Amino acid sequence: MAAMLASVAMAQQVPSVPVPTPPTPPPTITRLPSPTQVVENARAHEWSTIAPTDLIIMTLTPDAQGRARQVVIQLMPAPFSAGWVANIRTLARAHWWDGLAVVRVQDNYVTQWGDPDGEDAARARALPANLRVMTEADYTVRPQRAIVSDGPEASGMAWIPDVANNLSNDILTGGLGFYEGFPLAGRRDHHAEMFPVHCYGMVGVGRGLSPDTGSGAELYTVIGHAPRHLDANIALVGRVIEGMAHLSSLPRGTGPLGFYETPAERTTITSIRLASQLSAADQPRFQYLSTDSQSFGLYADARANRRDPFFIRPAGGADVCNIPVPVRRVPS
Amino acid sequence: MAAMLASVAMAQQVPSVPVPTPPTPPPTITRLPSPTQVVENARAHEWSTIAPTDLIIMTLTPDAQGRARQVVIQLMPAPFSAGWVANIRTLARAHWWDGLAVVRVQDNYVTQWGDPDGEDAARARALPANLRVMTEADYTVRPQRAIVSDGPEASGMAWIPDVANNLSNDILTGGLGFYEGFPLAGRRDHHAEMFPVHCYGMVGVGRGLSPDTGSGAELYTVIGHAPRHLDANIALVGRVIEGMAHLSSLPRGTGPLGFYETPAERTTITSIRLASQLSAADQPRFQYLSTDSQSFGLYADARANRRDPFFIRPAGGADVCNIPVPVRRVPS
Repeated sequence: MAAMLASVAMAQQVPSVPVPTPPTPPPTITRLPSPTQVVENARAHEWSTIAPTDLIIMTLTPDAQGRARQVVIQLMPAPFSAGWVANIRTLARAHWWDGLAVVRVQDNYVTQWGDPDGEDAARARALPANLRVMTEADYTVRPQRAIVSDGPEASGMAWIPDVANNLSNDILTGGLGFYEGFPLAGRRDHHAEMFPVHCYGMVGVGRGLSPDTGSGAELYTVIGHAPRHLDANIALVGRVIEGMAHLSSLPRGTGPLGFYETPAERTTITSIRLASQLSAADQPRFQYLSTDSQSFGLYADARANRRDPFFIRPAGGADVCNIPVPVRRVPS
Repeated sequence: MAAMLASVAMAQQVPSVPVPTPPTPPPTITRLPSPTQVVENARAHEWSTIAPTDLIIMTLTPDAQGRARQVVIQLMPAPFSAGWVANIRTLARAHWWDGLAVVRVQDNYVTQWGDPDGEDAARARALPANLRVMTEADYTVRPQRAIVSDGPEASGMAWIPDVANNLSNDILTGGLGFYEGFPLAGRRDHHAEMFPVHCYGMVGVGRGLSPDTGSGAELYTVIGHAPRHLDANIALVGRVIEGMAHLSSLPRGTGPLGFYETPAERTTITSIRLASQLSAADQPRFQYLSTDSQSFGLYADARANRRDPFFIRPAGGADVCNIPVPVRRVPS
């Protein structure tokens, strides 16, 4: 798609003989770069390479047509959900998920995977002994124990005021922003706590009723509208950066909460590995557009005020989940 | 699930001998009815029956396992998008969609159906001659030409201030609310215009570049996070109230914008009919929870402040798209 830079409308000369009043000209719209163009124009140093220890490779059994299915997840950066992320690395290194399955697909909510027998103490697969036990307090990060000093705006967290001004969600009164590639929010009435937020493709830790917070062995990803009510109520540990359709287009489960009612309906997990467990030649390499880069700020602004020729009325703002952080696969 | 009405914690007596300080008791949480319980408790007169002329029955060819696939859509109430809705009734009565197909599935965006040859003038199926031609001005409704008098709050549109106070989206500065079962928004900087908003399952009219606004022959539904940037840029004509998974779990198209690259990938539409075209015995009957009922207000509040035992921290608000209007199928 070529850039659309419309010329400024020329003022019309009024002729010297009477003519019918011309129709009101359409408002002049300056065509600035689209979100896609901003990303294409980003400079090399604005892209951050994701470490192999922050990449999860989930391989499902091939689909009905025999096509391979691979899902890639970028893990959440510390200090957010750090204990659960450590557990996920431990479980991947132990090959713990191999042979387990996608057990639940609830429309407009989540796809969930783990041990189908996890609730049955006699049949559940044993967890590694060295998993960390996390608490509800770990769902959020408070400035005094994290890497910020005086609230989000004054933080060293790549909180982007210019972007945040375009972000819209007044229940998240402590601000919205991005940290090392992930969407964050804060609520002032929760003592300036900050926490990652649920967006399409974010990966979280399944759990039972409070105060059980889950180990990280049972995971889900969001396949519908962002369930804002789950924020700070559950641990977010990453996001799907490739292969999301393999999880979002699965048949919905017909049991309560979208659980599959028969084992035959489940999709088997061949393996889950950290990229760092693969040989160097087999490691995929991904980069994300640094969320503290100038281009990311321009991209967020372009998402909030779409200038593609298709659009008539710019929204003037964007939900934090409508600004997905750009990711690209690069040659290994 | 039984109602969870926790008793108020009793104040502890201080014993007369020194003991270690007891741990701080957890905060008392009063378990009020969950959203599901509020809906179950709604009274009969709070449910509104959807007219057969407002119901679209879309039948797809059976799936790979031979199971029937039916999608039911509730059409948008006037005055919103009224011209396009009239066109859709005309097209259904003409059996226009029969034999056409789902042509596009773009992950986290839309599933779209219509004429696969619609862009090819030589092969496109002819449209009925009596379709209305709509303009971009018809995307929104202004108070002076609609059924409101002095802004949303003072309208007769079942705008619900108590609900709106819990709704969160500060880019929609003219307020948020519901009208006859549909989510609406307004923007003050757009002359108090009001318009339906894109949420998961909402149905809209595909179009080309402005000023083409589409006829209603090409339709889509939202299968991901609400694309807020499409609001007031495209006509919304209804929402899927049953069978959404038949559209959301289809394989994603691999062409640009998620279009299928080969005809074999498309799902064929057996028929699209108004319920009123079916015999009385075959007409499905649906009701929605009236959006101006007391129970809907309680439901919206419960969605904004989840009290189910699973939740620890209520969000204190809800995105308008996280308050799906409850619908039920009732015996014909």
